[in-house]
Amino acid sequence: MKRIGKQTIEFTTPPKIESHGAVAGKKEAEGPLAADFDQTFKDTTLQTESWEKAEAQLQKEAVSAALRKGGLTPGEIDFILAGDLLNQCISSTFGLLDFEIPFLGQYGACSTMAQTLFLAAVLVDCGAACRAAAVTSSHFCSAERQFRTPLEYGAQRTPTAQWTATASGCAIVGHKGRVEVRRGLAGKIVDLGVKDPANMGAAMAPAAADSIRQFLLDTGTAPEDYDCIYTGDLGQVGTDLLHKTLDRDGLDLTARHQDCGLLLYDRESQDVHAGGSGCGCSASVLCGHILSRMEAGGLSNILFCATGALMSPTSSQQGENIPGICHVLQLSRS
Amino acid sequence: MKRIGKQTIEFTTPPKIESHGAVAGKKEAEGPLAADFDQTFKDTTLQTESWEKAEAQLQKEAVSAALRKGGLTPGEIDFILAGDLLNQCISSTFGLLDFEIPFLGQYGACSTMAQTLFLAAVLVDCGAACRAAAVTSSHFCSAERQFRTPLEYGAQRTPTAQWTATASGCAIVGHKGRVEVRRGLAGKIVDLGVKDPANMGAAMAPAAADSIRQFLLDTGTAPEDYDCIYTGDLGQVGTDLLHKTLDRDGLDLTARHQDCGLLLYDRESQDVHAGGSGCGCSASVLCGHILSRMEAGGLSNILFCATGALMSPTSSQQGENIPGICHVLQLSRS
Repeated sequence: MKRIGKQTIEFTTPPKIESHGAVAGKKEAEGPLAADFDQTFKDTTLQTESWEKAEAQLQKEAVSAALRKGGLTPGEIDFILAGDLLNQCISSTFGLLDFEIPFLGQYGACSTMAQTLFLAAVLVDCGAACRAAAVTSSHFCSAERQFRTPLEYGAQRTPTAQWTATASGCAIVGHKGRVEVRRGLAGKIVDLGVKDPANMGAAMAPAAADSIRQFLLDTGTAPEDYDCIYTGDLGQVGTDLLHKTLDRDGLDLTARHQDCGLLLYDRESQDVHAGGSGCGCSASVLCGHILSRMEAGGLSNILFCATGALMSPTSSQQGENIPGICHVLQLSRS
Repeated sequence: MKRIGKQTIEFTTPPKIESHGAVAGKKEAEGPLAADFDQTFKDTTLQTESWEKAEAQLQKEAVSAALRKGGLTPGEIDFILAGDLLNQCISSTFGLLDFEIPFLGQYGACSTMAQTLFLAAVLVDCGAACRAAAVTSSHFCSAERQFRTPLEYGAQRTPTAQWTATASGCAIVGHKGRVEVRRGLAGKIVDLGVKDPANMGAAMAPAAADSIRQFLLDTGTAPEDYDCIYTGDLGQVGTDLLHKTLDRDGLDLTARHQDCGLLLYDRESQDVHAGGSGCGCSASVLCGHILSRMEAGGLSNILFCATGALMSPTSSQQGENIPGICHVLQLSRS
């Protein structure tokens, strides 16, 4: 592996994605990507006693799907990197406990899928792991009551609000597979002063712009060099801001850009306002939709740029801004 | 780097700790390690507006101390790995924002110092980074009101309760320095059914036993091969349980074991009950006390085994157990 430019690393012998799994809830199963999930659940509790336990179950199901599809056992995975939005990342702890795989908890808010995949690729590349798994999740109901209001309150959502996906995705990195992790960039925390917790797209767009701009600069590439540049979950508001911001730098993303938050739901019919969000959004779109399309040959070279808003209800109540972060991975068909 | 045994990795050319910084609060400054900290603060708010902002400030001060002592600028650090106990790890976000260093948020509860240092060493070893920083923090007041009760309530603490340290530690890993990271083991999540959130020592001891046992097995070493085996923050209750558990496997740790939670305070005079805890406990003991002793020649080969309890108030309220985790690092004088 070597560093290129200011912030990017390039894998000399790129680690490969051996297997992947994606599971989702009822609303996601009614959306345009329904056919891409390994399993979907109509019951928001997944037959557990709480939404938090249901979210843990989502992670367990996503990892199980990835293991099953790869013909792997938990004992063949050397590290599992996981995180989620719940306080102290409890979905990851309780979802992954039974697998008994060495665990490295991550917190990147909705950027977690890119962060875990980045570190999993590093661990495989350097020989620390033969295989490492990356997983994350979110659940509309557990997130809503933790970050916003009790669901029973029926709070009205603003037009800029996004819908936290009930979903989980898991990718297992190893030495074989048709998709490889070629390059990666870990983002900086970017704070342009956004304070509205009902407008995460605006909070995250500056970080997406910063990381994508830096990655293109470091690699000497242009948006046209990629089949698609996927952002995590900027939604419509964040997408518009990202395009405007990069346009000022002479980078026209419009022809090559898709946002996972806009792919997961049909905004016309599904009442998700500005789009989807949550760690499980980009995770399930990557591990359900994107990787399958790459393996099938429909896409051969993409950027996966998951974005996160680094805030808590406490930080917002104490008047802090909502900084964003965006990690970038270049995935290619090998 | 190569894998040895079942769960351990060994650095062929061990990364080195270039610099380190530790800061702490008033109670810690009154304890036996007072002279080991780079800076201590009498004011629990560090002149900020809240305890949460104060905790962020602790991280900023610890990183600043490590940079200053190493003659480094933030631009010379390629990655910063950080996490803390506050919901969504806001101490790390707001404490590290201004450094503008690519950021990978971690969550390992009180095991975070070992986890961040492990990954920082991996990133340096494989060439992804020339230098990577590992940092974590905790604050008695922010933790107490988030995890337990408002401080004003004056809840009585049980004898098994530990005192969350107001402290932060930062270690910068690179290619020069007198202490090297030789080996590392990422722990599994271990759950033996402990449910008492006022007895974290008991919750974490099984994980400490599991990881230490596995590390010794993987490396073919015995407790006597190390000058000292430091656990993170088991306190007195967890320490006793660890000794008993390993004794059953024929491993007598008593002569070589110290616990950071028992080193940080004087239990006789400081009313901390079972000992210290919190991410900042093992972080400040490592980055203030242990690394300085190693550099001075008093210690030449140690294990640093930070332990974490992977729970939240929500998971406990929903009847879940409190699983533990323990990551092990072998640090040697080079």
